[in-house]
Amino acid sequence: MSLRARYRQLIPVESARTRLLEALGDHRVPAEEIAVEEAAGRVTAQAVHAAISSPPYHAAAMDGIAVRSSMTFGATETRPLLLPVDALQPIDTGDPMPADFDAVIPVERILEKDEGHEIRQAVSPRQHVRLCGEDMVAGEMILASGRRIRPEHVGAMLQANVCRLFVRRRVRVAILPTGDELCEPGQDPSDGRVIESNSRMLTALIESWGAEAKRLPPQPDVPKQLTTAIEQALADPGVDLLLILAGSSAGRGDFTPRLIESHGELLFHGVSCMPGKPVAAGIWAGKPVIGLPGFPVSAMVAAETLLRPALDRLSGCAVKGPERIQAKLNRAVALGRFDSGWVAAPLGRGAGAITTLSRAHGILRVATDSEGIPAGQMVEIELLQSPSEIFDGLLFAGSHDMALAVLDDALAGSSPGMGIHVTPLGSLGGLAALARGEAHLAGCHLLDTESGTYNEKAVTRIMGSAEIALITLAHRQQGLCLRPDQEPMPKDLPAAARQGLRFVNRQPGAGTRLLSDHLMTQAGLTPKDLPGYEHEEFTHVAVAEAVRSKAADCGMLIEAAARALNLKFLPLVEERFDLVLPRAMLDDPRITALRVQLESADWQATVEALGGYDTRESGSIRCLPKNKWSI
Amino acid sequence: MSLRARYRQLIPVESARTRLLEALGDHRVPAEEIAVEEAAGRVTAQAVHAAISSPPYHAAAMDGIAVRSSMTFGATETRPLLLPVDALQPIDTGDPMPADFDAVIPVERILEKDEGHEIRQAVSPRQHVRLCGEDMVAGEMILASGRRIRPEHVGAMLQANVCRLFVRRRVRVAILPTGDELCEPGQDPSDGRVIESNSRMLTALIESWGAEAKRLPPQPDVPKQLTTAIEQALADPGVDLLLILAGSSAGRGDFTPRLIESHGELLFHGVSCMPGKPVAAGIWAGKPVIGLPGFPVSAMVAAETLLRPALDRLSGCAVKGPERIQAKLNRAVALGRFDSGWVAAPLGRGAGAITTLSRAHGILRVATDSEGIPAGQMVEIELLQSPSEIFDGLLFAGSHDMALAVLDDALAGSSPGMGIHVTPLGSLGGLAALARGEAHLAGCHLLDTESGTYNEKAVTRIMGSAEIALITLAHRQQGLCLRPDQEPMPKDLPAAARQGLRFVNRQPGAGTRLLSDHLMTQAGLTPKDLPGYEHEEFTHVAVAEAVRSKAADCGMLIEAAARALNLKFLPLVEERFDLVLPRAMLDDPRITALRVQLESADWQATVEALGGYDTRESGSIRCLPKNKWSI
Repeated sequence: MSLRARYRQLIPVESARTRLLEALGDHRVPAEEIAVEEAAGRVTAQAVHAAISSPPYHAAAMDGIAVRSSMTFGATETRPLLLPVDALQPIDTGDPMPADFDAVIPVERILEKDEGHEIRQAVSPRQHVRLCGEDMVAGEMILASGRRIRPEHVGAMLQANVCRLFVRRRVRVAILPTGDELCEPGQDPSDGRVIESNSRMLTALIESWGAEAKRLPPQPDVPKQLTTAIEQALADPGVDLLLILAGSSAGRGDFTPRLIESHGELLFHGVSCMPGKPVAAGIWAGKPVIGLPGFPVSAMVAAETLLRPALDRLSGCAVKGPERIQAKLNRAVALGRFDSGWVAAPLGRGAGAITTLSRAHGILRVATDSEGIPAGQMVEIELLQSPSEIFDGLLFAGSHDMALAVLDDALAGSSPGMGIHVTPLGSLGGLAALARGEAHLAGCHLLDTESGTYNEKAVTRIMGSAEIALITLAHRQQGLCLRPDQEPMPKDLPAAARQGLRFVNRQPGAGTRLLSDHLMTQAGLTPKDLPGYEHEEFTHVAVAEAVRSKAADCGMLIEAAARALNLKFLPLVEERFDLVLPRAMLDDPRITALRVQLESADWQATVEALGGYDTRESGSIRCLPKNKWSI
Repeated sequence: MSLRARYRQLIPVESARTRLLEALGDHRVPAEEIAVEEAAGRVTAQAVHAAISSPPYHAAAMDGIAVRSSMTFGATETRPLLLPVDALQPIDTGDPMPADFDAVIPVERILEKDEGHEIRQAVSPRQHVRLCGEDMVAGEMILASGRRIRPEHVGAMLQANVCRLFVRRRVRVAILPTGDELCEPGQDPSDGRVIESNSRMLTALIESWGAEAKRLPPQPDVPKQLTTAIEQALADPGVDLLLILAGSSAGRGDFTPRLIESHGELLFHGVSCMPGKPVAAGIWAGKPVIGLPGFPVSAMVAAETLLRPALDRLSGCAVKGPERIQAKLNRAVALGRFDSGWVAAPLGRGAGAITTLSRAHGILRVATDSEGIPAGQMVEIELLQSPSEIFDGLLFAGSHDMALAVLDDALAGSSPGMGIHVTPLGSLGGLAALARGEAHLAGCHLLDTESGTYNEKAVTRIMGSAEIALITLAHRQQGLCLRPDQEPMPKDLPAAARQGLRFVNRQPGAGTRLLSDHLMTQAGLTPKDLPGYEHEEFTHVAVAEAVRSKAADCGMLIEAAARALNLKFLPLVEERFDLVLPRAMLDDPRITALRVQLESADWQATVEALGGYDTRESGSIRCLPKNKWSI
């Protein structure tokens, strides 16, 4: 069977992991003796036994006086006992018990009198005494082999006077980037190259797992050169596992699986997991070799599911899985904590988009044979951050606005842990998510063409009789963007249509889409009068980028997005962008913090500097239904 | 108010944390510019914006051929279209789209023919193309300030050609151990000293949080010397926070709170949290100073609840809380995963016992005003390890045996992640826990005095009609231990009683207790004939240690425990130690792994070398009720 044909015979990721772990068998990296002080995070290679007992003697468990318990018999509340001072010995917690003393009376139970110490309670033998060996007895096993050492294990070993121990040395991974098109970070990739970031990202990931990573010089897609580089890496006794980046798919330059097959044993090529499918692994020169896909999200997923278990196995400790929580599915996966539990809001970007991961809180796995998961269903999320790390922030759904990122940053700066997680769903999509209880905040700029007012009509229509508050984010200019060298420069949308300029549109439900549709209707234009009407993007910056990169010639957007990409901007309409939320949430301290920022001179200045923003009403509140206005 | 009086006015730990964080206010450690490659785990000090768009050009999203979409219009399954090869361009994932080409046909949808490439489906403009800026647009904020950088953030920043960024420098903690009684690890503490392990344990903890720790030379409990050492530490610009170890209680040598009060501002002294109560914090020379208790468990708890939030705040990121899971309370807290969820088995050691933490999986917080939590209640556990790290192991309850630790180690060595967590409850206590479904395995050695057989009678009585299996751990010698210089040496328990030797007993429900009670009854002895009968310990080694340290003169135990502490052992009875489990669990792969070890030459040799063990039947299975014996 050809490699290409085999690649189509994908195996489940669990089977791939099992094949890899079975191929590793009992192989472990060597043990080394190190100081216990340096051992946290390492894995024990041998069981550890206490060298001495702890405590090493009978010791006071409280501050007070050491006594012979027999001296205290009979003392009660009603019949206090006076102990002669010279028969006692003051003692502090941890002090060894003096010979022939067998109990401690805590300091707070003693009344110091001139004649002696008065006590009102008898103590029994060994009361408030930590017996020698109570915690650990000399010779006792205090840590088994194959355990990852925590700080408290360091404490336990030192107290048992164990100063050195045998641990597995850190697993060493060599990372070999491949590809003809690679350039280094900082170089200009616009001539068609790709910045080689994966090796750095994976190095950080591998180091976060307690292993070591070494980056090798990138290699072009030339089988002979690749083979030499791989064999050199595997011959290095300091390399326990080799990662080959990219080249594991079935494209023209994807040689990794073929090379593994011809020089070693190919364990699998391709797993039924997207992203992460184009992954290959084998044993070559007696060492594990894993080929990871070039798309960063695929590489990260494959590393978590296959590389991490292999590293854990090589160091002889338990194979770690990801943390999981239960959440109600919104769309594709950012997380927000609500009174009723977690809500998962899908991000829905592709495997090539690193922001899919860098903006995500977690991953939802969907079965290969799944036909989809309905919104509202409870799902299990594998966390990229721990629940407490997922900022105590606000889940925002709705229209995209650049001032939101500034607000997110300002909130994080003023109240660490606070922030806004934006799911761009458009104005209408955001209100619908708010109505379903899947967002803390919606954001919209919806013109009511009859009244000429913004948002209130649409919010009332979608949110029904719910008590709703609107907080003004800002007023902003909507208009047309064009490349600065556009000739002739149209003065409005109808003029652009007449010139045959290719338009880039926003998705249905976006406030900007409703506005451009409204302007077209006013001008008597239909979609077929506007070439590119069907070309839809989800954000202002995506529209600006389409024009800048000549995928289109003009589009509707906010001034700040046009300015960010040095495009020409023709202002057409000033609109109000509101944050929409249940009125009851106005009391939430996070909303208070948010309003403080909206009204702050810093935030207002930063936002106005973006261009096209007016913050004259930022932070002001309106409540719906109107007859209940109270603020 | 005197400090001592104030110490009695404990404040809730949440109030203490709030006071400390409020005192820190907006204070942050300085920012520094570092390479993005080195930034994982650090905290952003400024928002990060994309330097270039990603992808930096329109790029193929699949391996295949680049086409003009207009060329493909009309192609269907029934009307395939033949594209001339010279109008196409082969392209691999990530390659830039050639000028004037606007879509990619994936390689698997192409049939290569002599006359050209046959396609059976049209593609639309931009299909399988990643548009320039689709992931990140130049100028877009890709990371807000105050966020902890993950590996995927490193990838995102490098792809956006951001190579350096401003992060908070690591927070630097100086650790000052105090106390007249300290000695270094490796020194002999048996003359009344205490091994200074806390600074090393806390260093490991602080480093695991991404901060730096520097240990200062220990200081005696002399206020003037202490003050000088503290002022020196605080004058060091490389110190952001000072930890003073021990001296924060209200004992004679506890000067920390007094010194803070007289040289700075004391924020609190004492929190209503046990362990962890004797903690103090203040601001001195403009820097935070925290006095931690000397007991290791108290120090760790206070560090988690007060130090960690302070370090997070100083680095400007979200204050992290511990991970939590829901579990059903068994006793006091080790964790085991059952089909029905997690079960929490309390360890119940003291604040001075580091094994309370080093053997624990998590912490259960009990409210100050709680009158107790009934077994069986669902409780929230703060995890010391992540759920996936808590070994896929077996929760054992019952009699303590040294062969169990050897088995734990052997299992961890052969199947990483496997292991046995022992809760010593005695033979009867273990069976009761098994019956309640709170342990995977019980361990017992219960003599039926009528039949002279071990375990089956008691198991049937306690487990009722449940189908139960017994796996023999080993046979072992029970007997009397004495110090080797005992003169005269008694030959049995009645002889020891006649000599007036002080006995150390096991707790009620322990198989050894039932055995010693039986031997006493046979000899016509009553508890009052045996001095020390009421002195109870929970394990064999604790009994041995009591005799070694002269807290008692003799006790009943297994030979291995006596041998471990070089005591004289008088064998009296050979008994069978069985592992008891639901018969259905015999199919569990963990039980299979366990039996493999019990029957292995390695485990048997190691256990027999402990002394007093016979492994002739180790690993053999008996099933109850007897009429269903099948193995």
